[in-house]
Amino acid sequence: MIIVMKQNSTTSDISSVTEKLKLHDLSAHISEGVSQTIIGVIGDKSKINPSDFEVLTGVKEVVIVTDAHKLSNRVFHPENSVVKVQLKDKVIEIGGDKVQVMAGPCAIEDEDQIMKIAKGVSECGAEILRGGAYKPRTSPYDFQGLGLEGLKMMRKAADKYNLAVVTEVLDEKDIEEVATYADILQVGARNMYNYRLLSALGKIDKPILLKRGLSAELKEWIMASEYILSEGNKNVIYCERGVRTFEPATRNTFDINAIPYLKTETHLPVCADPSHGTGKRALVAPVARAAVAAGADVLMIETHYDPDNAKSDAMQTLSLEQFGDLMSELKGITSAIGRSI
Amino acid sequence: MIIVMKQNSTTSDISSVTEKLKLHDLSAHISEGVSQTIIGVIGDKSKINPSDFEVLTGVKEVVIVTDAHKLSNRVFHPENSVVKVQLKDKVIEIGGDKVQVMAGPCAIEDEDQIMKIAKGVSECGAEILRGGAYKPRTSPYDFQGLGLEGLKMMRKAADKYNLAVVTEVLDEKDIEEVATYADILQVGARNMYNYRLLSALGKIDKPILLKRGLSAELKEWIMASEYILSEGNKNVIYCERGVRTFEPATRNTFDINAIPYLKTETHLPVCADPSHGTGKRALVAPVARAAVAAGADVLMIETHYDPDNAKSDAMQTLSLEQFGDLMSELKGITSAIGRSI
Amino acid sequence: MIIVMKQNSTTSDISSVTEKLKLHDLSAHISEGVSQTIIGVIGDKSKINPSDFEVLTGVKEVVIVTDAHKLSNRVFHPENSVVKVQLKDKVIEIGGDKVQVMAGPCAIEDEDQIMKIAKGVSECGAEILRGGAYKPRTSPYDFQGLGLEGLKMMRKAADKYNLAVVTEVLDEKDIEEVATYADILQVGARNMYNYRLLSALGKIDKPILLKRGLSAELKEWIMASEYILSEGNKNVIYCERGVRTFEPATRNTFDINAIPYLKTETHLPVCADPSHGTGKRALVAPVARAAVAAGADVLMIETHYDPDNAKSDAMQTLSLEQFGDLMSELKGITSAIGRSI
Amino acid sequence: MIIVMKQNSTTSDISSVTEKLKLHDLSAHISEGVSQTIIGVIGDKSKINPSDFEVLTGVKEVVIVTDAHKLSNRVFHPENSVVKVQLKDKVIEIGGDKVQVMAGPCAIEDEDQIMKIAKGVSECGAEILRGGAYKPRTSPYDFQGLGLEGLKMMRKAADKYNLAVVTEVLDEKDIEEVATYADILQVGARNMYNYRLLSALGKIDKPILLKRGLSAELKEWIMASEYILSEGNKNVIYCERGVRTFEPATRNTFDINAIPYLKTETHLPVCADPSHGTGKRALVAPVARAAVAAGADVLMIETHYDPDNAKSDAMQTLSLEQFGDLMSELKGITSAIGRSI
Repeated sequence: MIIVMKQNSTTSDISSVTEKLKLHDLSAHISEGVSQTIIGVIGDKSKINPSDFEVLTGVKEVVIVTDAHKLSNRVFHPENSVVKVQLKDKVIEIGGDKVQVMAGPCAIEDEDQIMKIAKGVSECGAEILRGGAYKPRTSPYDFQGLGLEGLKMMRKAADKYNLAVVTEVLDEKDIEEVATYADILQVGARNMYNYRLLSALGKIDKPILLKRGLSAELKEWIMASEYILSEGNKNVIYCERGVRTFEPATRNTFDINAIPYLKTETHLPVCADPSHGTGKRALVAPVARAAVAAGADVLMIETHYDPDNAKSDAMQTLSLEQFGDLMSELKGITSAIGRSI
Repeated sequence: MIIVMKQNSTTSDISSVTEKLKLHDLSAHISEGVSQTIIGVIGDKSKINPSDFEVLTGVKEVVIVTDAHKLSNRVFHPENSVVKVQLKDKVIEIGGDKVQVMAGPCAIEDEDQIMKIAKGVSECGAEILRGGAYKPRTSPYDFQGLGLEGLKMMRKAADKYNLAVVTEVLDEKDIEEVATYADILQVGARNMYNYRLLSALGKIDKPILLKRGLSAELKEWIMASEYILSEGNKNVIYCERGVRTFEPATRNTFDINAIPYLKTETHLPVCADPSHGTGKRALVAPVARAAVAAGADVLMIETHYDPDNAKSDAMQTLSLEQFGDLMSELKGITSAIGRSI
Repeated sequence: MIIVMKQNSTTSDISSVTEKLKLHDLSAHISEGVSQTIIGVIGDKSKINPSDFEVLTGVKEVVIVTDAHKLSNRVFHPENSVVKVQLKDKVIEIGGDKVQVMAGPCAIEDEDQIMKIAKGVSECGAEILRGGAYKPRTSPYDFQGLGLEGLKMMRKAADKYNLAVVTEVLDEKDIEEVATYADILQVGARNMYNYRLLSALGKIDKPILLKRGLSAELKEWIMASEYILSEGNKNVIYCERGVRTFEPATRNTFDINAIPYLKTETHLPVCADPSHGTGKRALVAPVARAAVAAGADVLMIETHYDPDNAKSDAMQTLSLEQFGDLMSELKGITSAIGRSI
Repeated sequence: MIIVMKQNSTTSDISSVTEKLKLHDLSAHISEGVSQTIIGVIGDKSKINPSDFEVLTGVKEVVIVTDAHKLSNRVFHPENSVVKVQLKDKVIEIGGDKVQVMAGPCAIEDEDQIMKIAKGVSECGAEILRGGAYKPRTSPYDFQGLGLEGLKMMRKAADKYNLAVVTEVLDEKDIEEVATYADILQVGARNMYNYRLLSALGKIDKPILLKRGLSAELKEWIMASEYILSEGNKNVIYCERGVRTFEPATRNTFDINAIPYLKTETHLPVCADPSHGTGKRALVAPVARAAVAAGADVLMIETHYDPDNAKSDAMQTLSLEQFGDLMSELKGITSAIGRSI
């Protein structure tokens, strides 16, 4: 249930609504847009009568929404949301006119590696450094990442080159530690349905990059974002990284449809990861161009100075030269659609 | 097995090779590129010894390729193939610098309808008219298209507005009739594995638009094209139209990866059909832009002056206004990648 | 639209209905069950008014069914249909109490091979010989089967051991030839959407084994059967042979759900092909047992006296010994569910 | 890397191996079979030389296994593993001759509900009560289960009818609480890739029911079990619950192939959940019979005295009468394959 307030409604009108909701053990998520305020109602709505709310002063209408995405829904928030990442001396905006780029290695291997890559990607124009410190691996017997040590290396490299840091968090217990070193916390594809982790990330205020599950339906993905949003963290960025299909020639099938679908259904920024979305170096640049042309607000590109010898994802990692070429190509695409990069 | 001839090899060298192949009951598919000639060997290679051919004059090397795509393979034909459509007073090139556009209704409904649409799409810059006369339908109880009558209407409309015609052929028996009225013959997704139809289309010289099967692997699709190519018709255009996945929010999942994959593996032009690839009007334009940014040579867009009342595919059909807007948007994208539209 | 006649309706009542339909350019498919007659209406129903028919004598009700399966629907034919195969001196019933078994090689290789296998499978209790004469192959450069020569070998072997013959037909032009030698004509997975072939098979009276398309939805499959049924051939047997999914460990994913789904929705017999459905020899017998336990009326099992050296499908072909063991195991399962084998 | 000991090797031989591994910072997982001992080596094997171990007394061979499933692998443990559930006055064996049955509601609704159902399913012969207390839901706005209160109700009902309890655990933090009330802890499909949860469950000694992820490959699923096994908990039961495919007519596609695949590749018991695997009441019993015929050791069946009004999964829940009928049908199947129920 969503309560749409009139344009001239007052804060006191809004308080009356939320007080009445409390009486019914319901909580309110207030979303103030430029032109109107929307109140999302959370809890067991079966106990209440919508018309009891429609009569309150300042209420325009009460909308019954079955199982809907309330807080991410563009209907109730027509403007694009811009997620801001605050660095020491600049703010990076995700979802605004400028298309942002996250680049870096699959896994942080050592300090020298991440330093070299941070330098390289920053010279090409990327403003966000990606890298894995905690790696979820199919086999318990495989390298699981450098952990805290890796986080520290990555922060040091990012600070040196004035980059933001995005890295994956695997578990509620690690959130505080990861949030100490990272500017954006990534939920990996394998954890998209880990609702406990999502709820916990809803209680911090750092941006969350929410990757799509391996075969998550678009509606499930949006509902997963509601687990974060409904706890108070409004800074969610979706990340399409390909889905699992019958096709063996590519690692995943990049779902380009997802980009305009999310931009239509939600007001939140959308990231594209063509590295995982294709799994093949030769396909990364064309699909990156396609994603931007389809409306992606951010790109995530696996990049390494020596991709053939990267510890993981070698097949899909660009060299710094290839990454630089891609950045040049993207300039044309972004200006064709009225954006910058 | 593929026999690569030296650059300075003569036609008599080539004849020696093909004669020797005939002695072993093998046939030769000769592919003359700008810089070299390739001879694809067809038949039971187990009977012969490759080194018997390597010693022949003019032979550079003999390559053993297991189950490979011989005639579509970019390795043996490094230049892009350009498929030409000859109209009365112009030639339309598919696979060259200019991105071509096929537009029109899902089904031809009557002469007035196809005339109006032909006029509309030609005014927006499309040079190829699409429309269904023979419609493969899930139910035998549904409208199956106007057939021959529809073909005639479509030809008339195309001629009036100087457009080429592309339409589907369902059966070997209809090829002659369809080829009389159409410039490009389409094999629909449901017929991609209909090898008898493909072989028969290999014996005509009109361009064939080969749609990907509903869940055809990329390699199967390429091998399907070999059924056409190996009979002698070199004018094949692939058409990605979305694949079947678990996702219910879109009609199909448009496989953007397929475009650069095909451009890398083969030398043939690639078409994108975002109408079927998304099934949703709001997603057609963004995915069309994406497809061109990824390297598509042609677009196929379902267009109707009154899409809400189209007899089929209403949900995914653009209005003429929307189609015009898309054409304008595409101008920016094509010039960003050094092409025109 | 379906017109349900009263139990006591007369043939003259039925004629009145069909005459009235003809006046509206509609045709009637009359389905006479034990207890009631159902008239399926085919053509453009938009022109008529259902109530004009409800008032006719003998009409019980007029049911509007959008896109429904009319002739295969169990609602209008509550009893199981039994498809009969007439041999010289016996009748094989498919869909009755006895579970039937089709066994034999993927491809007919030579007369000696098919003779040995026919002998072997008949000794184990199979009554139907399977074998491919016309083989649809992914590559045009691969062995396409022995064709007519293979059909003749197969018929000879079947006659010697009193077996029925099932084999694939690829094209309308081959129907007459294949029907001369085979008792059951198979439509392969790749041709399930080849509606011209299906319609042509609807005009003969031999049983049709309709395999499910690689990723055909259950409803599409049922509608494909309507293409055969609506032309007059009532002898359709569905064959589940696994569907295409993301899983690489098995060749296909055998959809066990399909068996009870079809038995519930339709009145026609269901065959299970665990050879293609698994692609792995070790999984064939367990999945064959499962299929029978779930209600399959027929099994199709690839069998060869020397499976490791079979020309195709070696990985999924049982030896005659393994086939014999499976037949013994199945005896227990069939008697547990009140059937025989 | 796996070290296979000779049949006559001594515990001192084994100690020598494990000591040497420790020197290289590697740990050993010792698996003692009836006839031989296998030592799985965990950690960074790149530092060591296999031949240094092959020379040790008692070592038969050193096998290099890339990314293999070490502890679940049937090769190194040819006998079936039997997982034991200890109740006050009986032991329930899973993976032995008797096929076990888990039955109960999707969600625990109140004490009366779970009592009635416990009574009902125990009268039909089930020995394990299933029910959800912590429910992972697609929407954060939906009922998330009764939690601890529900666990207590379920334990009480199970104790009264001498049943074991299986229920889902969502988070590492809940393990102790859930393990207090449940005999078997379930990892749901959404958490199959939650490696932190799996590792934590490896440190307790209660049996773990590991459901397959929505689109998890068979090999990924087996590797997920290694996260539990490698921490010391040997009591893993796989549970096939259907996978996500293109098919809309059923909730999931039950992968019957998975059952014999797991029985061949691993030594652990396999459970089948036809309720989620089909999503349709009419398909549950046939697929349950199929699963047992294919080799399943346990069944999990959603059951309710009033399924139409169940709070969740109503469409796929059997009534107690239907459940009783199914148990009778299964008696025939199990005796046909030499097992009991």
